[in-house]
Formats: sequence, C-alpha cells, structure tokens
Amino acid sequence: MKTANEIANIVSREIEKLDWSLQPLGLYEPIAYVLSMGGKRLRPMLTLMACNLYTEQIEPAIAPALGIEVFHNFTLLHDDIMDRANIRRGKPTVHKKWNDNTAILSGDVMQIASYQLIAKTPQEHLKAILDVFSSTAREICEGQQYDVDFEQRNEVNADDYLEMIRLKTAVLLGCALKTGAIIGGADEHDATNLYNFGIHIGLAFQLKDDLLDVYGKEETFGKKIGGDILCNKKTYLLIHALELAKGQDKLDIQSFLKKNYPDPQEKITLVTAMYNKLKVKKICEDKMMFYYNKAIANLDNIRVDSSKKQSLRNLAEKLLYRND
Amino acid sequence: MKTANEIANIVSREIEKLDWSLQPLGLYEPIAYVLSMGGKRLRPMLTLMACNLYTEQIEPAIAPALGIEVFHNFTLLHDDIMDRANIRRGKPTVHKKWNDNTAILSGDVMQIASYQLIAKTPQEHLKAILDVFSSTAREICEGQQYDVDFEQRNEVNADDYLEMIRLKTAVLLGCALKTGAIIGGADEHDATNLYNFGIHIGLAFQLKDDLLDVYGKEETFGKKIGGDILCNKKTYLLIHALELAKGQDKLDIQSFLKKNYPDPQEKITLVTAMYNKLKVKKICEDKMMFYYNKAIANLDNIRVDSSKKQSLRNLAEKLLYRND
Repeated sequence: MKTANEIANIVSREIEKLDWSLQPLGLYEPIAYVLSMGGKRLRPMLTLMACNLYTEQIEPAIAPALGIEVFHNFTLLHDDIMDRANIRRGKPTVHKKWNDNTAILSGDVMQIASYQLIAKTPQEHLKAILDVFSSTAREICEGQQYDVDFEQRNEVNADDYLEMIRLKTAVLLGCALKTGAIIGGADEHDATNLYNFGIHIGLAFQLKDDLLDVYGKEETFGKKIGGDILCNKKTYLLIHALELAKGQDKLDIQSFLKKNYPDPQEKITLVTAMYNKLKVKKICEDKMMFYYNKAIANLDNIRVDSSKKQSLRNLAEKLLYRND
Repeated sequence: MKTANEIANIVSREIEKLDWSLQPLGLYEPIAYVLSMGGKRLRPMLTLMACNLYTEQIEPAIAPALGIEVFHNFTLLHDDIMDRANIRRGKPTVHKKWNDNTAILSGDVMQIASYQLIAKTPQEHLKAILDVFSSTAREICEGQQYDVDFEQRNEVNADDYLEMIRLKTAVLLGCALKTGAIIGGADEHDATNLYNFGIHIGLAFQLKDDLLDVYGKEETFGKKIGGDILCNKKTYLLIHALELAKGQDKLDIQSFLKKNYPDPQEKITLVTAMYNKLKVKKICEDKMMFYYNKAIANLDNIRVDSSKKQSLRNLAEKLLYRND
C-alpha cells in the first residue's frame, strides 16, 4: 500500500505530464497557468487512496483522478470571474491576468478536458463513473448558484448554508473517493461509506475555511485574512452572529455590515471582536467536529483492514488542524 | 425509413420533454429559455437521419442527438457573452435578460447536461461516441478562440478563415452525423464519409451565413442585415474585398472600416457597394458550391441505397438555398 506522500508524488507527476502546449495559445496557456499554481491536490489524492484500499493496481484510477482535479480547477476559474476575485493562491486570477472572455473559454475547455480524462476509466466502470461525475458536476454548479443567490438574500439560515457548501464543496470530495472505490473494486456498501466520508470531511473542511478566514494567519492561509468579512459573506460565523446578537450588539453588527470603512482593517477588527463576544467561533468548531466525527464513523464502517484506513484518517485530521 | 419531417417532429418532441423545472431556478430557467427559442435543430436531425440510414431503430440515437443540440446551444450562450450580442433568434440573450454570471453558470450546466445525454449512448458505442464528442467540443472552443483572435489581428487570409469556421461550425455537423452513423451500425468507411459530408455542408452553411448577413432579408434572417459589416467582422467577403481592392478602392474600404458613422446604414450601404464592385459575392458563392459539391461526393460514397440518401441530399440543398 502506498503512503500519502507517494500518492501525492504520483499526482503531481501526472498533472505535470498533461500537455497544454497546444494551439491556439490564447486558449491553452491559461489552463497551463491555472494547473501550475498548485493547490493541495486533495481530490485526486482521495481518488487514488480510495482505490488503493482495494487494490495495489491504482493505475486505472489515475486518469479519472486527474479529470476530477481539472474539473475542480475549472470551477475555481469560472467562480473567480463571478466573484470578481483578483488573487488565487497568491497569484493573479486568469480573468485578471488575461480577460473575462479568455477565462470563460479556457474554463469551457478545461471542463471538456476533464471529461476526456474521465472517459479513460476502464470500460466496465465507465458508465457508473460518468454518472457520478456528471451529477456531482451539476450539484457543484447548483451550489455556486445558491452561493450567488445568498449574496442577494437577506435571510440565510445555517441549514441553507450547510446545504450550499455540501453542494459547492463536499460532493466533489465524495465523488473523488467513490470514483477511486469503484475502480478499485469496492462494493456498494463501501463505495457509499467512502462517498459519505468525503461529504463529511468536505463540510468540516469548509467550516475550517470559514474559521481560517477570520482566525488564520495570512502567511500560511494564502489569502487576505478577513476577506469574507469585508465582502459581508454569509459564512457560518456571520449567520450565527446575526442570529445570536441582541439589543445593541444586533444594531452594531448590522451597522458594521452597512457602513463603508475607509480603513478595511477597522471593519475586520470590529466584526471579529463581535464574533468573539458572541462566541460563534466555538459554534463553528463544534459543528466542524460533529462532521469530522461523522466522517470517522463512515471510515470505520468500511470493510477493509483498519491499518489500511490510517492514511485517510490522517488526511482528515490534517485538514482539520491545517493552517492554510 | 422516416421522412425529414418525421425526424424533425421527434426532435422537437424530445427536446420539449427535457425537464429544466429544477432548483435553483436562477440556474435552470435560463436553460429552459435558451432551448425554447427554437432554431433549426439541424444537428440532432442529422444524427437521427444518419442513424436511420442503417436501421429503423433510431431510439438509441435520440439521447446523444439531444446532447449535441444542448451542447450547441451552450456554445451560443457563452459566445453571446464574449461577443456582447444582445439578440439571438429575435429575443434578448441570456446575459442581457439576466446577467453575465447567470449566462456563464447556466452554460456550464448545459455542458454537463449535454454529457449526461451523451452518456445514455448504448454501452458498446459509449467510448467511441464520447471521444468524438469531446474532441469536437474542444475544436469548437478552439474555433471560437481563433474567431476572437482574428478580431485583433490585422492579417487574416481566406485559409485561416476557412479553418476557423471548420472548427467553430463544421465539426459539430460532422460529429452529429458520425454519432448517428456509429449508433446505427455504419462501418468506418461510411462513418468517415458522413463526417466529411458534415464538414463540407458546415463550411458551405457558414459561407451562406456570410452571404445572408449582407444579401439576406431581415424578416427571414432573424438578425439585423449588415451586422458583420458594422462590427468589421473578417468574413469571407471582407477578407477577399481587402485582398482584391486596389488604389482608391483600397483606401475607401480601409476608411469605411475605420470611420465612425452616425448612421450605421450608411456604412452598410458603402461596404455593400464595394463588395458588389469587387464581385466578392460570386467568390463566396463559388466557394460555397465547391464545398456543397464535395459534400454530395461524400454522400455518393456512402454504401447505402441511393433512395435512402435522398433526405440528406434534400437537407443539404435546403441549407444552401435557405433565406434564414
């Protein structure tokens, strides 16, 4: 069985092998750029690790694993246009470095390229993998639409938010794991438990992201701390703060959201102080642990040797205690 | 064997059956809107007609035929954002009626939905159909990128232009026909000839479009006459006019392109008069007939009863003599 490090090396090597030096340059250079930016490569790692639970022959899962990573990077590319985000992983986003049209069209090609990689799935599993991939891909778009809708809506409750992040973030982790499991030869029971393990670590992962945006360190987080606060993003923290605040606190937080601060740091400091006063950090951490424990229960349910599951367990833990 | 009318009815019935009444509405309503706008439904008709050359059982080709039509409409949706086109088939485009973000994201879902329909191809042909579909889809994006690039380039020759329209328009007709042929049970020889038939009618079709933009009638064309002229689009007519014009004509046409006309009709009239003087209409018509004849030769090569090929022959002729 391969270590997480070995799996990570396979993933980076295989991503580098993808050839984007194609014509027209205006279409393919942005794709090479996006994929060279790095990132955790979490999704293809999950696919290969899930496959490796059942077989030493993980080669057939490599192309679909890459397809999932290319698809993930495509969604980031298009999301960055919609969110008018200028920086991703410390570098200018494609629509900023090139322009919107380039980002739209290069993203479209990435989506096709991801299907070309998925299509390399061994024949006997092709239809099943295609179906889980496509329905997941649609859910991710639905999640993005809810995210956009929430910007305009006054009332977003915690359940709405959790459903949105399930769609936008968690289902692709589930899909990555299930894909590896199916190709590795897992039965329905295990494939479903691995899918749910992915859903639950995905939800925990996003809640951790919400926490890092406020309580993380800029050097390791790669994005500006307080970005969510500055754009009034309805995170798990803000939704609960709005629910819990009473009296003057309620008036204060509403004014923080409406007021235009010449110094953005002032707004971040005020909102963070309010989060601390209302103890929403703990609510978010508790929910994160709730999903983490569910994920571990899913992993326990899987019918393979406990020793084999150790790397997935370690990975889940690392995601939870990460600083970036 | 089914008549073209029967095939057209099957296509519209099946497109209407696609269910887009899904949540979130902001994502799915634009898709229903785009697909309800109509259009010739040429591509799915070609798939079913090609299949019907080999078998009466065209049912297995229906889902992939619809996938190709959904994909085609997705490309129109994203192209309209990039071209800032406000009207399509006489109605406001999605990014105009909603906004850019909606058009991007709904388009992304349409692309996924097209793969979901393609994935319904019978198992024994699934990999082959997926491969031709994906490589075609990429070529279409490449064609769109060349089209965008040509806007910025000073020198675009006729061959560059023909390659661009082959990618942007013709390959999807080829793919539609080949898809139907493979599912119907055609051998490699026939599938290739049907693909090339599609390429050649596609090229003829686009040259006809260039002609209609200048010499068509607005009521039937559905778009404003002279649209290409107003945006200096490097069509087959303009490329040849720029090549052929000498002396004062050359200076005149260059000034028509640069000058800002308060009355757009004036520019259309001047450029059209120059096209007439330089006889580029005939050059374009000749090239169109050249491809039409190649298409007919491809059709002749196909090893099925001549009588069965009559509807494809009629369709090709209709495209050539159409007014819209």
